[in-house]
Parts: sequence; C-alpha cells; structure tokens
Amino acid sequence: MVTERGRRPIGMFDSGVGGLTVARSVIDVLPHEDLIYFGDTARCPYGPRSHDEVRDFALDIMDLLVAEDVKLLVVACNSAASTTAIAEARERYDVPIISVIEPGVRAAVAATRNRRIGLLGTERTVGSGAYDDALGHTKANVEMFSRACPRFVEFVERGDTASAELLEAAHEYLDPLKDRGVDTVILGCTHYPLLAGVIQFVMGEDVVLISSAEATATEVYARLVTDGMLNDRETLGVHRFISSSAEATFGELGERFLGPEFKAFEHRPWSVRT
Amino acid sequence: MVTERGRRPIGMFDSGVGGLTVARSVIDVLPHEDLIYFGDTARCPYGPRSHDEVRDFALDIMDLLVAEDVKLLVVACNSAASTTAIAEARERYDVPIISVIEPGVRAAVAATRNRRIGLLGTERTVGSGAYDDALGHTKANVEMFSRACPRFVEFVERGDTASAELLEAAHEYLDPLKDRGVDTVILGCTHYPLLAGVIQFVMGEDVVLISSAEATATEVYARLVTDGMLNDRETLGVHRFISSSAEATFGELGERFLGPEFKAFEHRPWSVRT
Repeated sequence: MVTERGRRPIGMFDSGVGGLTVARSVIDVLPHEDLIYFGDTARCPYGPRSHDEVRDFALDIMDLLVAEDVKLLVVACNSAASTTAIAEARERYDVPIISVIEPGVRAAVAATRNRRIGLLGTERTVGSGAYDDALGHTKANVEMFSRACPRFVEFVERGDTASAELLEAAHEYLDPLKDRGVDTVILGCTHYPLLAGVIQFVMGEDVVLISSAEATATEVYARLVTDGMLNDRETLGVHRFISSSAEATFGELGERFLGPEFKAFEHRPWSVRT
Repeated sequence: MVTERGRRPIGMFDSGVGGLTVARSVIDVLPHEDLIYFGDTARCPYGPRSHDEVRDFALDIMDLLVAEDVKLLVVACNSAASTTAIAEARERYDVPIISVIEPGVRAAVAATRNRRIGLLGTERTVGSGAYDDALGHTKANVEMFSRACPRFVEFVERGDTASAELLEAAHEYLDPLKDRGVDTVILGCTHYPLLAGVIQFVMGEDVVLISSAEATATEVYARLVTDGMLNDRETLGVHRFISSSAEATFGELGERFLGPEFKAFEHRPWSVRT
C-alpha cells in the first residue's frame, strides 16, 4: 500500500557533513527513496552557539525542507536534536520527524547485557543532557556514562582515522569509560562511525558499538513501512545535497562521508542572518 | 612504528560484488590504506560448486593477490571462507589472513544477552557448518540457530531492499528465528547489510544485528595496529577493483555496494578453467 505521499522525498539536515553518515545509511536500506540533504556549512559548527540560535537555525532549515514537500524529516544533527526545535517543529508541521538521538538510545538499551552503557559525543551534545533525557523516556533500568571527545571531529575532518596521535586521544577519552565497565557504547556524533575501528580497538571486542546513523536509518525504514509511505518506484532515488556555503572543502569532505556522488552539491546561501 | 610492510596494499576477494560491503567498511575505518579487491564474477556464484572447486578458486585468487605483494588477505567471501582454503593458504603464504566468519561470530558472542544467536546466510554457507565450527572455537556457552535465506541475494542484486514481496520473504525466513527467541543475528552473507532495514524491522528493535562487514573491518584495523603494519601516509589510499568478467552489470552493482568510485574496474580474465 503506497500513498501519493510515498513519492515525496525524505528531508534531512545537519550543521555540516557529519549527517552524511546518516544519509548513507538511509540510502543503503532505502535506495529507491528521493533524499534532500541540507548541510548548514555557512554557520557550522553549531557547538559554540547558544541553544536559541541552534533552535532557530534548525527551524529555518526545516521550513526550507518542508517547502520542498518532504514526507519525513530526519534531524541528523545531534546539536539541533538536543534543542527544543524538534518539539516545536512537531507543532508546526504535519510531517513525522525522526532525530538521531532516540534510535541510538533504544538500540543501546536493547544491546546492553550489564545495563551500563557509554555515550561518546561533542561537548555540546554531552552537556545538553539530551541523551540522558531520551534514556529516561525509555524507563529502562540502565546507567549511562558520558564522555565528551572534543578532538574526534577534527581528526575525522582531516582524514585521520588511524594515526598514533588519534590512538592516544582515543585512550584518553575511552579508558575512563572502560574503567566504568560499560558493555555498549553509543557513537553519539555523526562523525564517529568513521572512527569505529579505533574505538572498537580501544574498548575491546566485547563492547558493542551503536552507530546512531544505522539505528536512525532502520527507524526511518520502519516508519515508512508502518505508515505506508515507501516509494514503490523501480528506479534508484535522486539525492540532492544542498549546502549553505560554497566552500569546495565541503565537497571533498562529503566524498569521504558519502562517496563520490557527493561532488555535485548545490549552494544555497542564507538570506537570513548567519 | 610503521614497517616497510605498511606501505603494501590490503588484498581482498569475493566471488562477486558482495564483498564490496566489506571493502567499504575497511575503507571507512582505514582510508589511507591501499586496497586491491578481486571479484570472481566470471565464476560467480560459488554456491552450486563443489567444496574442492571453491577451494581451488580461492587459492587461485590468493596466489594472484599475494603476487601483487599484499600485506594482509581478507577473505570477504563466506563460501570460500567455509572451505579448507584458508587453512591451506596459511601454510602457503607468509601473510596474515582474516576471514569474514570469525569476526562476526565473536561480535555476536559478545553481543548476545540471552546466549541465543541467529545466523542468516546462503544455503551453502549455512550448510557448510563453518559458523558452527567458529562458534565452537570460541568455547562460548551460546546456542546458534541458522536460517538459509536463498532469495535475499537475488533481491539485493536487483536493487529491491524494501518491497512488499521482500517483506513477505523476510517474514518467511525470520519468523522461525524470532520464535526461537534469538536476541542477536549475524548477517552471514556480504549482501545482507543492505537488507538491515527490513531485517531489523521484522526481528524487532530489541534484536542486535551483527554486520560481518563491520566486524571484519574492525578486525583488520586491530591487526594492522597490533602488527605495526598501518600505512602512515597522509594521502588517501588507492583502491583497485578487479573482476574476472567484463560485464557492465558488475560495475552497476558495484556502485550500489561501494559507491560510484567503483565504476572504474579492471577486467582480468582467467586463463585457467572456469
């Protein structure tokens, strides 16, 4: 059963390139869906900005995506997902909204054996308490230990996922989590799936890593099936990538995150404040 | 500490395109490594062939890759990995060999909470008992329930990862595993990561899916770090894709599995028997 709605694209956004790991996971499991991805590179990173600013930016972008007639919104940005933007957007639009936070938390709750999970994220995400709130909503009897890993994004963005320097940073961030005895770790930043090798190595092979990107993609899949909103076309979907700055580095980084098809991206400058 | 050996490429093979999911996971976590991937498309599928034939093919290909001076071999082919080829290759070459089977089994043993895991694979892989043997070697007190899913490969290869027909097939294959109460499922075929959406949907969100591709990539990472064999260059690695048939469909499918960079593949016909 496919509705007219099924033909419309999925909308997704992040402050920059990180959310492309989510895009790739969605494209993998739903290759026939059209996708519009917006990377707010002109105003990236969101980390140092205030709650209200990030909320406003997120609502700006969701306005833009809803105007493109998307059937579902994916907030592939942990910073935006830790604001009140999603709650406000649910009031504002008649479109289901999936954030990267809840699917990762639920997958971790399902995966833990000893009820001790770890969360890795940026300082902003960890400090926001959004993952703690999401864990609280599951009512699971699970303890979560969080670690901000401020330098991880920088390593990924310069293409370093395997140096001795990275390994040292990983030990600094992760050893305290190991000491807490967590058996499951949420990669709570969309950049981190590219560090799965070093993180698994340092944590040890008994620890289960939860990729928010994959957990979110399976949630998108489930939602489209349940709501009868799958696109039933036979051909592959069209993927549009839009960025708010014209910097070439966005294309280069995008390629690392998503693959070469990212080369073709549209530049849409903000007419609003940056 | 990086040895001369670190500069050499990683060698990887499969009977066809499926192993490209492993290649992509390796490229993700080890972007600076050179990689040579061989897809034996002229003799694919290996499923209907005898043990000795598949063993011989695997050794042919490993000879070819070792002649390319690879520093590590990845057997990204469940059929080949379920023969005696790996044991024989370990005698024959002075190069570490990682197969897709053991990393997936160890990750599943680590992830299960109720000590009941499921295995999905082709008829050949499930019938070979290779996963049962690998589980036996872990000495873990875990029960494994296997299901052959013969039609899954065909769905993936025609680009169908979300139809009603696929959902029905998934229920047929997976409902009996659900009835067994497994809490962890190994995707024991390199095609299956592209079906993670439908498999997670049918199994339910409490079940942990283990991608052999990702588990193998983290094992490759760990091995290179431990042996001091990482490539310490600053630039991205070079990825060569070789196939034994010149069919264009290989390129098209390859793109779905790995991304557009796959378009450029070399054709190397066998001078030996097919």
